[in-house]
Amino acid sequence: MTEQTAIAVDLGGTRIKFGVVTAKGEISHEYILPTEAEQGPTHVIGQILAGIRHILKSNDRAAIKGVGLGMPGIVSLDGKTVSYPPNLPGWEVVRLNEQLASQCDLSIEIENDANVAALGEARFGAAIGEKSFLMITLGTGVGGGIILDGKIYRGLFGGAGEIGHVTVDYQGAKCNCGGTGCLEAYVGQKYLSKRTAEKIRRGAQSKIHDLVAGDYTKIEPLIISQAASAGDQFAIDVLRETGTIIGAAMATVLNLLDLRTIVVGGGVAAAGKILMDAIEQSARSRVISSIRPGVRIIPAMLGNRAGILGAASLIFQS
Amino acid sequence: MTEQTAIAVDLGGTRIKFGVVTAKGEISHEYILPTEAEQGPTHVIGQILAGIRHILKSNDRAAIKGVGLGMPGIVSLDGKTVSYPPNLPGWEVVRLNEQLASQCDLSIEIENDANVAALGEARFGAAIGEKSFLMITLGTGVGGGIILDGKIYRGLFGGAGEIGHVTVDYQGAKCNCGGTGCLEAYVGQKYLSKRTAEKIRRGAQSKIHDLVAGDYTKIEPLIISQAASAGDQFAIDVLRETGTIIGAAMATVLNLLDLRTIVVGGGVAAAGKILMDAIEQSARSRVISSIRPGVRIIPAMLGNRAGILGAASLIFQS
Repeated sequence: MTEQTAIAVDLGGTRIKFGVVTAKGEISHEYILPTEAEQGPTHVIGQILAGIRHILKSNDRAAIKGVGLGMPGIVSLDGKTVSYPPNLPGWEVVRLNEQLASQCDLSIEIENDANVAALGEARFGAAIGEKSFLMITLGTGVGGGIILDGKIYRGLFGGAGEIGHVTVDYQGAKCNCGGTGCLEAYVGQKYLSKRTAEKIRRGAQSKIHDLVAGDYTKIEPLIISQAASAGDQFAIDVLRETGTIIGAAMATVLNLLDLRTIVVGGGVAAAGKILMDAIEQSARSRVISSIRPGVRIIPAMLGNRAGILGAASLIFQS
Repeated sequence: MTEQTAIAVDLGGTRIKFGVVTAKGEISHEYILPTEAEQGPTHVIGQILAGIRHILKSNDRAAIKGVGLGMPGIVSLDGKTVSYPPNLPGWEVVRLNEQLASQCDLSIEIENDANVAALGEARFGAAIGEKSFLMITLGTGVGGGIILDGKIYRGLFGGAGEIGHVTVDYQGAKCNCGGTGCLEAYVGQKYLSKRTAEKIRRGAQSKIHDLVAGDYTKIEPLIISQAASAGDQFAIDVLRETGTIIGAAMATVLNLLDLRTIVVGGGVAAAGKILMDAIEQSARSRVISSIRPGVRIIPAMLGNRAGILGAASLIFQS
């Protein structure tokens, strides 16, 4: 019997990645198309279908169990409708499942990308064997996915897991979402870079200045991390404060949901050991004592395969 | 056929309340015994059994479906073991279910008191018809219970719902739990009273001074509320700040779990409209926009019957 596979689709604001994935997580037939998001939903849906057709040409259709698709935005509980995906102009509310299914004779599962990343780590990555955990993705924004008893916890309308909009300081920085003192307003890549640049402009001494040759728009977590690794005290302090804040938000989740494990992925996580140590120390010091001994904060393992492997998990989970 | 009933037990640090409750929430045969907690778990278990026996004397045993018991502390997922209940010295870890069952031929369900209060509001109170919600109890401490799909969400080890230990300010006040900037460190009754007293001592002008005749140990939410209702600006500001902080913690939970409804109970909630308005305004302004239109923050309805009716719900839920 032919091994069953899934077509995995990772829909982002600039690129759509495709792959054929086995139940064991082996990826073949990777393929990329530009999203061309500015041309609106009908065009983007056309791109998705073009990618799927391209894959079908060189694969045994009978072996394909279905198409798993991860994307930004809120996916309705029935998995059929996508609402307000950021970075996809003109989408608002799109009945994506129907539109894809009408032109492609395969079963289709759609899920939010942060949830997909969590599911991918659960099936193929850092969280194998973990029944319940939080996945936090520290990127341009801060995304989250909650896995409870092996399943994505989606909330009343599919929007759960917004750890980026957990309060860390009720009197704190304004957030893009309209809220105040959200985690994302401190540690989202853009905010982190901006806050760091401001501090240097205001006179903080740091190797970061030289590393970006005075162009503070180039400050990013990797640069801060590089300066910190070279012993730059300012950069070390920035990472420690960032870690303290992330750890506080994590403690909130662990206390509230009585969880123990958090998987950390995304670009900011690449800032390395100083940041991860600060996160762990902060979270551990803030959880209630019955939780403390079990706390595990572990780096994600799937890296840039998270989108594809997570999307494939949608097909293999049932 | 005789109407089925439950024996409900509400075990607190000073009193044990008992009642017979029908599936419709009618309470009869209320009875109270002192906990005499200082005499240790064996004595307290004896008091529980004495109360149950007292009730059985005047009730048809055949009609009794079981005993539901709510109490402080973490109740294990199997409902059999209770760990570290606050205000019950000497308990640490007690296999309570076994100890009660061995001396009383009835099925026994044990649950944490904050969870019990949430279940009670779901079945008999403010949250009838709500599938998923958070219950927050603003008392000496701050308790919480999460109901998801009609069931208590208990987490990995039964400790979920600790909204009192959600961070509201990562650089904030130290909390009794060892954490920093927990909600409870701002709005638990003791902290709230202490912080208010400190402000008056430092020179804030307020009617509260007269209401407690200069004895600041007597400051409690109801007094602050009374002063506020009489137009005292200091008291109004205290309640507004308290509401802002509570609302921030609520927004955290709504954003994280994609919920809409929060039921507010407990003594601090009795502080009334100024506080409730501030809570609602803060929570609403801080949730992400897709959640905002659905937010409902409603007062608990069961008052001091919450413990008994909630405990009875444990028996009628299956």
